[in-house]
Amino acid sequence: MSLKDFTDKMLPAIEGELQRIVARLDEPRTQTFHAMLSYHMGWSGEGSGSKASGKRIRPLLTLLTTAACGADWQPALPTAASIELIHNFSLVHDDIQDRSDLRRGRTTIWKKWGMPQAINVGDALFILAHLAHLEIGSCFPAETALQAARTIHEACLSLSSGQFLDISYEQRDDLTIEDYWPMIAGKTAALLSACTQVGALLGGAGEAAQVAYCNFGHYLGLAFQVHDDYLGIWGDSALTGKSTESDLVACKKSLPVLSGLGKKGPFAQRWSDGPIQAEEAAAVAEQLAKEGAKLYAQQQTDQMTDLALQSLRAAEPEGEAGEALFELAQVLLSRES
Amino acid sequence: MSLKDFTDKMLPAIEGELQRIVARLDEPRTQTFHAMLSYHMGWSGEGSGSKASGKRIRPLLTLLTTAACGADWQPALPTAASIELIHNFSLVHDDIQDRSDLRRGRTTIWKKWGMPQAINVGDALFILAHLAHLEIGSCFPAETALQAARTIHEACLSLSSGQFLDISYEQRDDLTIEDYWPMIAGKTAALLSACTQVGALLGGAGEAAQVAYCNFGHYLGLAFQVHDDYLGIWGDSALTGKSTESDLVACKKSLPVLSGLGKKGPFAQRWSDGPIQAEEAAAVAEQLAKEGAKLYAQQQTDQMTDLALQSLRAAEPEGEAGEALFELAQVLLSRES
Repeated sequence: MSLKDFTDKMLPAIEGELQRIVARLDEPRTQTFHAMLSYHMGWSGEGSGSKASGKRIRPLLTLLTTAACGADWQPALPTAASIELIHNFSLVHDDIQDRSDLRRGRTTIWKKWGMPQAINVGDALFILAHLAHLEIGSCFPAETALQAARTIHEACLSLSSGQFLDISYEQRDDLTIEDYWPMIAGKTAALLSACTQVGALLGGAGEAAQVAYCNFGHYLGLAFQVHDDYLGIWGDSALTGKSTESDLVACKKSLPVLSGLGKKGPFAQRWSDGPIQAEEAAAVAEQLAKEGAKLYAQQQTDQMTDLALQSLRAAEPEGEAGEALFELAQVLLSRES
Repeated sequence: MSLKDFTDKMLPAIEGELQRIVARLDEPRTQTFHAMLSYHMGWSGEGSGSKASGKRIRPLLTLLTTAACGADWQPALPTAASIELIHNFSLVHDDIQDRSDLRRGRTTIWKKWGMPQAINVGDALFILAHLAHLEIGSCFPAETALQAARTIHEACLSLSSGQFLDISYEQRDDLTIEDYWPMIAGKTAALLSACTQVGALLGGAGEAAQVAYCNFGHYLGLAFQVHDDYLGIWGDSALTGKSTESDLVACKKSLPVLSGLGKKGPFAQRWSDGPIQAEEAAAVAEQLAKEGAKLYAQQQTDQMTDLALQSLRAAEPEGEAGEALFELAQVLLSRES
């Protein structure tokens, strides 16, 4: 079975599980509340469909890890879905915090239903996530369910701390590359690392393999984010069209930007002169590349990817699910948009 | 031992436990984040102190219930503190949603640090709450810890649904008294009911006693909220001064207001004519009383109080802690501000 064979089976199961969990709110008095969550998850409202739902990478990672430990992935479904809901809770709150109008090409929750209900939608996704995970108590020993809950909540705390750093960085102009890593370790890597760690725990992996899987998720998350930062400046959509999607225009202090600022050259000078306009994004991106930031970002992605793959090999994933995990990592880290 | 003897011992233990839990964020990079949570909890910043911390009624209820089941209350501390943190998570998000400037007489988190960080502070309090509860896995069987977690998360889901109703009610003018109860059952009673239910579970109470304690918390919550609604219109601070604290001026659709609207008399007429001004609050409150809403609110408080006390008696609370529980209920339901 290839990655595609696994996803063909797992994705519908994940989607069904997510819908079952969210249906808890499908009561007469909370119909509209249920509709808000359902809209955000991509199941209803204008523009609904698989593109609106996102790729469900996190639950896939969890289930593939469980399978690569030689176990049946089905009993891990509530926990896999739980992590996807946590990811979506963070997106809903993130969109309010960033005042983003669009998410996956659709109007965001706060834009559609107002900030107060949007905060509440995020909270409800988070609560439903934890309730879902607790269901595994019927398939796994209570001690295992508790340990998995601890791992997931620890990842959430890192996520929240990373979010704190990200927001506080907006107002700082003394940031260096050293400030970057703890922020993305929290915002991106913590939850991906929980996916693989919990997947391994539920798959019955030993202590050493659990640590290796945890490291795999961690480095995968770092590589994923650095690659995302790269695409945000030199990716197709960042360079073409009106370049409004460029991270440079959004003033995002991503890794390449912090690298460029550290050089104190023409890029740093231009950055300090005020917001970069869409029409100059391509030229500034070229200048930033000239100062070595493009190569640096590529090198960092490669290094984190190597560490991720080393960790995955150390985990000794079994059979076709193991091969599918390597394939998933390749897909995530070689994407061009 | 009287209630006071218990609170003299329990309150410092609760406060210490809360500070220990929140100290997880007391790391070099997240010092400011820790300061935000610490400020909200009433431990630091201008106006800090016991008044800024609130009364810690929820953890007290949990610990007293555990003790009234004949068990040691100390091992239940992480869970008691967890529920207080959940209460505070909801307050922080509530203040953003309501755009409230003050909480317990102090500037609210969102007013002080902005909406984005305030959302994050609420999220962190919520995450820390769940992490804290999971610690009881070392003192109680894992199965008990899981069951308590389920009860707490279920209460959070009710809290979130109640909050959805409350926000959605702001824009509705077709509300009746029937709409009131499910809203406060979620917003106020669910968490109080979780306090006593979980306290009983950790105290080793049997199934029947757990249900009785759960009902006690539920009706206590309803009685508490209806009494609060009463005080919001006819309490001292609502009637004296400039009456800016009157729920009538705040357009709050509380029980007496819904009762008055149902009468379709002079009060309903005045209500539909637009916002009530501070200087007319006392007169409108008198009109509302004339139409029977004051008596109705008192009767409802009495009825819910009776049901709460009946439930508590059915739980057969033991010893001095049991007596202290009755005393705590009396204190909560006879307060005048």
